[in-house]
Amino acid sequence: MARPPRPPRPVPFTHRVDVRYLEVDQQGVVFNMWYLAYFDDAMTAFLSAGGLEYADMLSAGFDVQLVHTEIDWKGSLRWGDRPEVDVALEALGRTSFTLGFAVRVDGALVATGRTVYVTVRTDGSGKVEVPALVARALGVT
Amino acid sequence: MARPPRPPRPVPFTHRVDVRYLEVDQQGVVFNMWYLAYFDDAMTAFLSAGGLEYADMLSAGFDVQLVHTEIDWKGSLRWGDRPEVDVALEALGRTSFTLGFAVRVDGALVATGRTVYVTVRTDGSGKVEVPALVARALGVT
Amino acid sequence: MARPPRPPRPVPFTHRVDVRYLEVDQQGVVFNMWYLAYFDDAMTAFLSAGGLEYADMLSAGFDVQLVHTEIDWKGSLRWGDRPEVDVALEALGRTSFTLGFAVRVDGALVATGRTVYVTVRTDGSGKVEVPALVARALGVT
Amino acid sequence: MARPPRPPRPVPFTHRVDVRYLEVDQQGVVFNMWYLAYFDDAMTAFLSAGGLEYADMLSAGFDVQLVHTEIDWKGSLRWGDRPEVDVALEALGRTSFTLGFAVRVDGALVATGRTVYVTVRTDGSGKVEVPALVARALGVT
Repeated sequence: MARPPRPPRPVPFTHRVDVRYLEVDQQGVVFNMWYLAYFDDAMTAFLSAGGLEYADMLSAGFDVQLVHTEIDWKGSLRWGDRPEVDVALEALGRTSFTLGFAVRVDGALVATGRTVYVTVRTDGSGKVEVPALVARALGVT
Repeated sequence: MARPPRPPRPVPFTHRVDVRYLEVDQQGVVFNMWYLAYFDDAMTAFLSAGGLEYADMLSAGFDVQLVHTEIDWKGSLRWGDRPEVDVALEALGRTSFTLGFAVRVDGALVATGRTVYVTVRTDGSGKVEVPALVARALGVT
Repeated sequence: MARPPRPPRPVPFTHRVDVRYLEVDQQGVVFNMWYLAYFDDAMTAFLSAGGLEYADMLSAGFDVQLVHTEIDWKGSLRWGDRPEVDVALEALGRTSFTLGFAVRVDGALVATGRTVYVTVRTDGSGKVEVPALVARALGVT
Repeated sequence: MARPPRPPRPVPFTHRVDVRYLEVDQQGVVFNMWYLAYFDDAMTAFLSAGGLEYADMLSAGFDVQLVHTEIDWKGSLRWGDRPEVDVALEALGRTSFTLGFAVRVDGALVATGRTVYVTVRTDGSGKVEVPALVARALGVT
């Protein structure tokens, strides 16, 4: 019997972030490392919107590990900003996938980023082909 | 045969902390939550100076959990400060112990704190009498 | 002319928090210091719901500083939990006020906390009587 | 009169980091964003070893802003590890410089990184040619 179609994930997919007071440094802008916290939240929300809860991925015996990340800043974030993080699949490899991120506030681009995730088994046996449940959540079945 | 005496831990025991740039908020002072990071580092160093590496406590099947903490501020820390955290045992219960902390910079008192740790088994079976190896590290054999 | 009444803040006031993956330690529970991050977010939301944006308090020349905080844990938080933080005014002094916090997840109490804030001028001149605009936001005019 | 030569900075320059318990996630490894905290500490230490305290750079009216960063992971860090971060100047532009980072533990390479810093005036007037006091600290007079 045919599997009912998933409700489509909005394109582009956007995850809203709340800047915390503690993330703002004495320059008055969000300290660089917190962008990776935002990307991590956005990745989880992206998979979830694609039908895969992270906990279910772990239960299925799979996890992801970062092998590369990069960020380019065009601007900065201040306390009280409510930035939006766009997430999109940029590339799918045999044992990895790449997500692209764009951080915007009030329509202005603040930063872009890109992270390469390798899919691994949770049993410690290392890299594994991107599992079907992850590929589906990425929108590439 | 008698066990050779441990080299005594200095009294008061002091753990030096480096304030990180990212810990300083837009008021120009270390944001409150980082004091708990300093206390955690200082607790580990205190046990270590008492002869118990945290990893060895875990290997022995024991861990600690916080049930209470409190901080009183008299001043603040700025970037570039290299505060010292004094640690002392304040109380020993049947299944818990209390450490007191004092944060100083250049001799001036910045904050005091107190944390109550309950000793637990790592197997999830809950509270346990303070194990001998922990009591020894606390200096109360 | 009479000032129109503010829309009342819900009682109890509740602020929802998203636990971030990075806040969970290798014990699998949220590390203790992040509760102070949650309290800070909840304090800002509480004042905002009372009609005072933090930025407007700063613009008016006032800020708050912590002089005391404490936390009691009854349980723990895991990744994926969406805890609620109840906030209530516990005490109002001449130059300070005390907020009480209760962290719940799925109805179960995880932790309670209490923070004492001193009101200060942003010009560095120190403590000041709790300004009217703060008192109003606390609901004690 | 001739300025006495600065004591040379060791090559490679290495900054030691202490992994904090709170930086380790439920996978048992340091969460990705903390590498940017390590790089930030290492950058400050690198400039300091080159004769420029960050506070003195600020007092002179200059600061740095990140415009790009990237990290490639070969391995991971665990609690108790005491990684070393090698820092080296990779490139010097007119208004920017690039530092390369290598994180090692017990001789094994864990990650490499690269950050591009733009030099700015602290008065908000934006980018400025790399000041002489920064160039000297970078070792490129």
